[in-house]
Amino acid sequence: MKSSPLFVGLDVGGTTMKAGVVDNNGQPLSSISLPTEAYKGQENGLERMCETIRLAVSKAGLGLDQVAAIGVATPGTMDIPAGVILDPPNLNPWRNVPVRRHVHDIFKVPTAFQNDANAAAYGEYWVGAGKGSRSMVLYTLGTGVGGGIVIGDMVLEGEHSHGAELGHMKIEITNPRQCGCGRWGCLEAYASATGVVKRTLDALNQDEGKSSLHAVMKKYGEITAKEVFDAAASDVLAAKIVEDTAFYLAVGTTNMMHTIDPDIVVFAGGMIAAGEFFLERIRYHVKQLAFPVPAAKTQIRYALLGSDAGFIGAAACGRQLHNKQAACA
Amino acid sequence: MKSSPLFVGLDVGGTTMKAGVVDNNGQPLSSISLPTEAYKGQENGLERMCETIRLAVSKAGLGLDQVAAIGVATPGTMDIPAGVILDPPNLNPWRNVPVRRHVHDIFKVPTAFQNDANAAAYGEYWVGAGKGSRSMVLYTLGTGVGGGIVIGDMVLEGEHSHGAELGHMKIEITNPRQCGCGRWGCLEAYASATGVVKRTLDALNQDEGKSSLHAVMKKYGEITAKEVFDAAASDVLAAKIVEDTAFYLAVGTTNMMHTIDPDIVVFAGGMIAAGEFFLERIRYHVKQLAFPVPAAKTQIRYALLGSDAGFIGAAACGRQLHNKQAACA
Repeated sequence: MKSSPLFVGLDVGGTTMKAGVVDNNGQPLSSISLPTEAYKGQENGLERMCETIRLAVSKAGLGLDQVAAIGVATPGTMDIPAGVILDPPNLNPWRNVPVRRHVHDIFKVPTAFQNDANAAAYGEYWVGAGKGSRSMVLYTLGTGVGGGIVIGDMVLEGEHSHGAELGHMKIEITNPRQCGCGRWGCLEAYASATGVVKRTLDALNQDEGKSSLHAVMKKYGEITAKEVFDAAASDVLAAKIVEDTAFYLAVGTTNMMHTIDPDIVVFAGGMIAAGEFFLERIRYHVKQLAFPVPAAKTQIRYALLGSDAGFIGAAACGRQLHNKQAACA
Repeated sequence: MKSSPLFVGLDVGGTTMKAGVVDNNGQPLSSISLPTEAYKGQENGLERMCETIRLAVSKAGLGLDQVAAIGVATPGTMDIPAGVILDPPNLNPWRNVPVRRHVHDIFKVPTAFQNDANAAAYGEYWVGAGKGSRSMVLYTLGTGVGGGIVIGDMVLEGEHSHGAELGHMKIEITNPRQCGCGRWGCLEAYASATGVVKRTLDALNQDEGKSSLHAVMKKYGEITAKEVFDAAASDVLAAKIVEDTAFYLAVGTTNMMHTIDPDIVVFAGGMIAAGEFFLERIRYHVKQLAFPVPAAKTQIRYALLGSDAGFIGAAACGRQLHNKQAACA
């Protein structure tokens, strides 16, 4: 009897890269992280990717000949069909890195390439919060706001590799905040951890010393989104910032419900540590903002795979490529 | 030699319904319009639909046995997979009308059912402004703002028949205008003909009698979007309203470029009579608002099929169903 195929997924981040072997049911058999050390240059980066893949395979007690396909996910900017990272802000000084070709040349198995947030969405769709759904929109909430869209097993890459850049949907025109991308009024300028901190600092400037967060600022000279969320239970200013964040995310979610109209919208990333209360506030605002039918029927949940979503989703991209090639063979 | 299959498309609107026979290359062989007269009730409406289809077939010099499939497009709200109009604001007093089943029972050929803006998008994608593209977003600019999205020959219906409700994307949070749908800050509240008129009236209230449009108001007691657009060449207030309209549409377009990232964005409907100048202003603002790669590469054009897009697209839905059934046979 022929054994079920195995895949390797690799998720390259600005700080670490994580790889794992994943079986045909989406179960990880191993995982391993190495520091990315992008500053050492892209040649080093490509070697580090291959090293991480090898270590993931050996940690699973397997040989490279048992790997049916590989998927690699990286941050942008990128040309997904070409398999190339172009000019990634988080992987300085890398430029025009032929990731897919390199990995394919080394391991000589079908190799898929995908945007990291798209891959995380595909991982959650396959075996996480979106399992069993037909279509899913994912928001990743961290320093920035990323996105991924899956419709009927198709990852929406877009024609110019800019599909699902959901943090850069404009939600404000008359008095827009500036986003980290340089543009104005993007969802990310409001709902990312960076946006939460900036809105908190603005509010503290106008609060005449009442909030408990002034003491945090005095002590550390700065404040984090986590500190704002932690203070929300007892501090009026922090509670308002958190409530507004839920509203902004509900605006983004509603815009996706009126565009993609998916089965499920999933939130991932550091901010979901805020817990069930925060999710309930997002759901509350969505019910106010969206049309009745999607408001009643669309599921809104937290992600389930944590930091494994990226490599599991990358492996899923490898698996999809493997299945496509098998179907054509 | 077997002749190429022929299809009938029917586009049901609030005022008229239009049907035509369309060949396998998307060329219309006939078209005919009848008044919808929704007030006469839905039984009458269903009969009128069948009558319009029969007239389109006979006008093309054909018999009903030469029709391979039919597609029907209607305004919402609706359940697309069920083939039912639910509670359509423009077809009062119709409720829960089983359109697809009725048309299928009468003509006994494969019958597709689709939202009217989705069908118009699919028509433009097939043989209009989007011909040859892989993915397309359509905005219809009339009393309201509608939308349609096609990706790789798939019409994005959404899981709850709310896909591509692009007029109801929220673009303003701090000082939102109320939309005809009752919600706040929707693109439609800004960029529809209704939105143009309301913004003009607001501006006239603050303009101390300077604009030439005050004379129009004095004469007719009201003003139309067309009069505002016509005055823009010589009137500062009208020019500002038109320029802002282009900006709002560019915001919607950019949001789609950062979500769907299509090959092409197409504008249809009455407002495109404003001509090439208006389209250039939309393009200008998109270049300011969007990420560099989609800003440089995404085509932005006017629709080509006029009021035929709906029935041609409906026929295309019938053709798609026909091809799917043929492939499975």
